[in-house]
Amino acid sequence: MEVLRTGSRDAIPSEDTLIKKFGVSRGVIREVLHLLREQGLIERVRGAGTFVLAPGPILHPVDESRDLAQDVNSVAPRIAIRCRAVSPQTCTAFTADKLAVPVDSSVVIMESLTTLDGYPVSVRTAFLPAEPFSVILDDPHIDLHRSPYELISQIIGQPVGDTDLEISCSNADALTADLLRVPVGFALLDTSRVLRAVDGTPLEFSISHARADHLVFTHVMKSSAAPARASSPAGATVRYGDPSI
Amino acid sequence: MEVLRTGSRDAIPSEDTLIKKFGVSRGVIREVLHLLREQGLIERVRGAGTFVLAPGPILHPVDESRDLAQDVNSVAPRIAIRCRAVSPQTCTAFTADKLAVPVDSSVVIMESLTTLDGYPVSVRTAFLPAEPFSVILDDPHIDLHRSPYELISQIIGQPVGDTDLEISCSNADALTADLLRVPVGFALLDTSRVLRAVDGTPLEFSISHARADHLVFTHVMKSSAAPARASSPAGATVRYGDPSI
Repeated sequence: MEVLRTGSRDAIPSEDTLIKKFGVSRGVIREVLHLLREQGLIERVRGAGTFVLAPGPILHPVDESRDLAQDVNSVAPRIAIRCRAVSPQTCTAFTADKLAVPVDSSVVIMESLTTLDGYPVSVRTAFLPAEPFSVILDDPHIDLHRSPYELISQIIGQPVGDTDLEISCSNADALTADLLRVPVGFALLDTSRVLRAVDGTPLEFSISHARADHLVFTHVMKSSAAPARASSPAGATVRYGDPSI
Repeated sequence: MEVLRTGSRDAIPSEDTLIKKFGVSRGVIREVLHLLREQGLIERVRGAGTFVLAPGPILHPVDESRDLAQDVNSVAPRIAIRCRAVSPQTCTAFTADKLAVPVDSSVVIMESLTTLDGYPVSVRTAFLPAEPFSVILDDPHIDLHRSPYELISQIIGQPVGDTDLEISCSNADALTADLLRVPVGFALLDTSRVLRAVDGTPLEFSISHARADHLVFTHVMKSSAAPARASSPAGATVRYGDPSI
């Protein structure tokens, strides 16, 4: 199926061509095309052919404290972040623990959708302590449609510190499936992170659900026993990716 | 549902107790219990009650070149690796690219199942170049039921170097679902890695599918702009885990 996942916007080959190319039955090809349509990856346009809808996955290094937008858009703007809602709330025990604040503290909840070339990549729910982030609720001049690292850094007036990350996965629920345009049950790559100030104070706790067909995390695990190799500087983790990013 | 995910082997509370505790209807409780049984997480024993089957998730740092067995078992042996099959094969273009060998080179394919306290955590398919790894096929004295880092290090006679990691997810196919005791379609955390010698030569390419309800990856993303904070030494990524590991 590699031929269908190139990120191209061209029509994909006809059923007959695919049957010859892969040496499989028409039934198998139809089943695969049906599945890809169901997942929103291809679209059949009457009289024109079948087109690849979604871009291929982007490899995103799990590296410095920064996010996909900063990583990808530094070369060319392909990632857009749209803040869907912000609201004040009191936090639960789970969030309070992550943010190291008392239960029932005031927090700001911020929901965002990230798109890659217009296609949904991930949804993020962020919890921010009211102090100093309630300004988000009040100040209409603050641009919420951008990287949380940039937003948070602007509000606290200094660079952010380290980020604790947990990577997991889950099956899409109805709401998330709708936002990401996938069927309910689609496997989603989940990241839960605590972004900290340089002194270690938690500034944000967030949970993201990402389409792994649009986003793949990469990392270089360094060897402790062996000397660093010259050909692999820290951070050079985008090894097999689209050379354009 | 936190109460059901503690890793305890005790009976879980009765339906009536759960209804009171969570303030939800009997229908909701039964639906959740049914789902957990389907996922192999709990088991009803006639006349005795319902028991939590699976251990809670282990947090595994995405850090040095080492795997879950080395990470967890250094404190207490909870992880077991069982090699299910080894076989010689010629490699495809995809694998050849990862291993930096010519297409149709000889490789050894090694399939392993990793368990946590007896419960399946992940399945791994590893591709190793025949030179020097065909010894795995021939020498009955080599212990295949252990960490690939240890195995590979022994065969090459020196410590391994860096590992390139890609983290993604997928819905379980029938075979993987059967091995991991989950329903078909269950969301699985996938890792694809290239383990290298200290000079950068690829030694192993492997693909793993893990149950994210048993295994969660963690990482500290360091800040580039901010100074390192004293309270977060590199590698101290197991922040919220079971204190016994």
